[in-house]
Amino acid sequence: MAMTTDVAGFSVGAGMAGVKDGTPRRLDVALIVSDRPCAAAGVFTTNQVIAAPCVVTRRHVERGRLRGIVVNSGNANACTGPQGEQDAIAMAEAAAAKIGCDPHEVAVASTGVIGVPLPVGRIAAAVKEIVLGPARWGDVASAIMTTDTKPKAIATELTLSTGTVHLRGVAKGAGMIHPNMATLLAFVLTDADVDEGALREILPYAAESSFNAISVDGDTSTNDTLLVLANGASGVKARGKDLGAFKGTVRALCEALAREIVADGEGVTRVFEVMVRGAVSDDDAKRAARTITTSNLVKTAIHGADPNWGRILAAAGRSGARVDASRATVRIGEVVVFDSGAPRAFDAARVRAIISQPQIWIEVELGLGSGKAHAWGTDLSAEYVRINADYTT
Amino acid sequence: MAMTTDVAGFSVGAGMAGVKDGTPRRLDVALIVSDRPCAAAGVFTTNQVIAAPCVVTRRHVERGRLRGIVVNSGNANACTGPQGEQDAIAMAEAAAAKIGCDPHEVAVASTGVIGVPLPVGRIAAAVKEIVLGPARWGDVASAIMTTDTKPKAIATELTLSTGTVHLRGVAKGAGMIHPNMATLLAFVLTDADVDEGALREILPYAAESSFNAISVDGDTSTNDTLLVLANGASGVKARGKDLGAFKGTVRALCEALAREIVADGEGVTRVFEVMVRGAVSDDDAKRAARTITTSNLVKTAIHGADPNWGRILAAAGRSGARVDASRATVRIGEVVVFDSGAPRAFDAARVRAIISQPQIWIEVELGLGSGKAHAWGTDLSAEYVRINADYTT
Repeated sequence: MAMTTDVAGFSVGAGMAGVKDGTPRRLDVALIVSDRPCAAAGVFTTNQVIAAPCVVTRRHVERGRLRGIVVNSGNANACTGPQGEQDAIAMAEAAAAKIGCDPHEVAVASTGVIGVPLPVGRIAAAVKEIVLGPARWGDVASAIMTTDTKPKAIATELTLSTGTVHLRGVAKGAGMIHPNMATLLAFVLTDADVDEGALREILPYAAESSFNAISVDGDTSTNDTLLVLANGASGVKARGKDLGAFKGTVRALCEALAREIVADGEGVTRVFEVMVRGAVSDDDAKRAARTITTSNLVKTAIHGADPNWGRILAAAGRSGARVDASRATVRIGEVVVFDSGAPRAFDAARVRAIISQPQIWIEVELGLGSGKAHAWGTDLSAEYVRINADYTT
Repeated sequence: MAMTTDVAGFSVGAGMAGVKDGTPRRLDVALIVSDRPCAAAGVFTTNQVIAAPCVVTRRHVERGRLRGIVVNSGNANACTGPQGEQDAIAMAEAAAAKIGCDPHEVAVASTGVIGVPLPVGRIAAAVKEIVLGPARWGDVASAIMTTDTKPKAIATELTLSTGTVHLRGVAKGAGMIHPNMATLLAFVLTDADVDEGALREILPYAAESSFNAISVDGDTSTNDTLLVLANGASGVKARGKDLGAFKGTVRALCEALAREIVADGEGVTRVFEVMVRGAVSDDDAKRAARTITTSNLVKTAIHGADPNWGRILAAAGRSGARVDASRATVRIGEVVVFDSGAPRAFDAARVRAIISQPQIWIEVELGLGSGKAHAWGTDLSAEYVRINADYTT
């Protein structure tokens, strides 16, 4: 997606709070502000061990319109007991004072170390000093990074029947943070005029084929948050027949962010996309596709560029999806390696060359129905182990 | 468990068939023979992509009494289409000719490369030449190894009210085999006189807390097979009030084999045992315990000896078990790191020392009920990645 002019009515910025150890040496607090109330929707972690900022933000989103988002990296404010919720509220209050709004109109997100009290005083002080502007999205994307190696910010525009609307997505990846936990944060901001009800339908739909379809290590974080805020500043309504196009664009934006996240996963050298077709249902196809992308056996085979198709089929077989090996077909790239229940002789060097690419396409045809789903996975490298084992508290 | 005299009425042996590439350079075919028909029960992989020997053996176990087991390593006879089932039957026939019984009285098991036709001619020729004896259990254990570094064979005895019975367990671990798939094979042989119905109850019970409670990499193989054969040669009945003791011994034997398997997992440097208590139900506790042992984040933290308890709690939280972080307590060794919903200050060096041991004990108290379960896991090392990525077809 090409970069375009920025979303109207939003100003953003970031500051250095020294969240992790009191030493402000990098951007670690960000603020996203709308000049008017926004329709909002959110999707949060399904982990039952849910971080305080997710609890508070869910409440604020349910309560009504939002004016902004405040985010920090370096501390997840998770497993922090009742104090954690008070700290998340205090963070919203600090942002609200800066914006000039009610604290309930602020969404809060945190990412970083788990089980350590949030240094909310330092965060509040940094929030106060943030210089806001319409174009500082790069700063926001940098401030929310943990083990990400690249900031992730994508802009796009969409021409509807009554004018053009802009969308901006910012995200951080499913990496690990010293000394703890993976988190995925993603924010979608738009100047389109969209009903809250429509947003609440669009967001889970967009998440399903994007952030919910990627896996780096199979672990679900305590802090996962996806928010969409629509402020209507463009004056262009996304309604009626335009709504489908808007929905498709939100989904495409989320998919683009998700692809960036998965490609920037810890220790990742290859990304593979799995398409499962011919399942009894879409749900079954999803189960199979996601089990294949999270299998350590598949992930290590891909890391080794090994045409190890048996692992792919075996992962599908244990996924809970209905699988009948005698009807299944497996393709790696364009090469059929298992055909309607029987292994097929193939040129191993050719398949090895395909799996040596940074992007790999795998297709599993189950031959049982018309269900289909895709998922993205990453290889499992010794570097992943190093990143996640070799740090100290 | 101490080594004891061998189970009566069984004779065993192994031979070199050159299963993998036609060059007979190691033991790769084994035969376990009873001098009389045995009551038998089996537990097989739950993977829907099930290997031909499992299909055939399940049928033979359901049909009636067994006289023996024939096993090969080096080829899993999985994903081999209709030819695979014919080859598994041919393998049973070769063993039956050697034993002098009906092919239906022979169980068949295979482990090794997937998707490659079984060289059944070479296997049949090797079976014919096997020298059987009462004490060659070490050969059997060696012949079924793939990436296992040690053979696994345990013997035990049990004194019942009318005499002493002997039990022998042989297993191979959940390792990967060039170029494909993990498999777990385990055989329990006893000279006790046990009803088939009782065996069919005992075996799933024993598997549940042993082979089903261990995880090296979370992948379920196409070939997993656990068989128990009881030939009654001791003349001692395990019935009535003796049955409980017999059941406990089968379970203990399976647990001992499972511990050996997990400790010999690929690239494993540490084994950790997770006990989850206070769950709403035993099933919930099992879900939590098993998700903790399969989490890559937990496994890498343990590899790095990192006191990263947030990952343990987060794994429980995504397991599907009911978890309320505000009531949970986490112990690593004897150190409480999270206490009834709040992080507790702890001596990180002390916890790091605990996690540096080869055996680690982790306890999670959920505070919601009386459900409990335990599970064993292994660390995830760069060596695991090397073993599973760096081979060629």
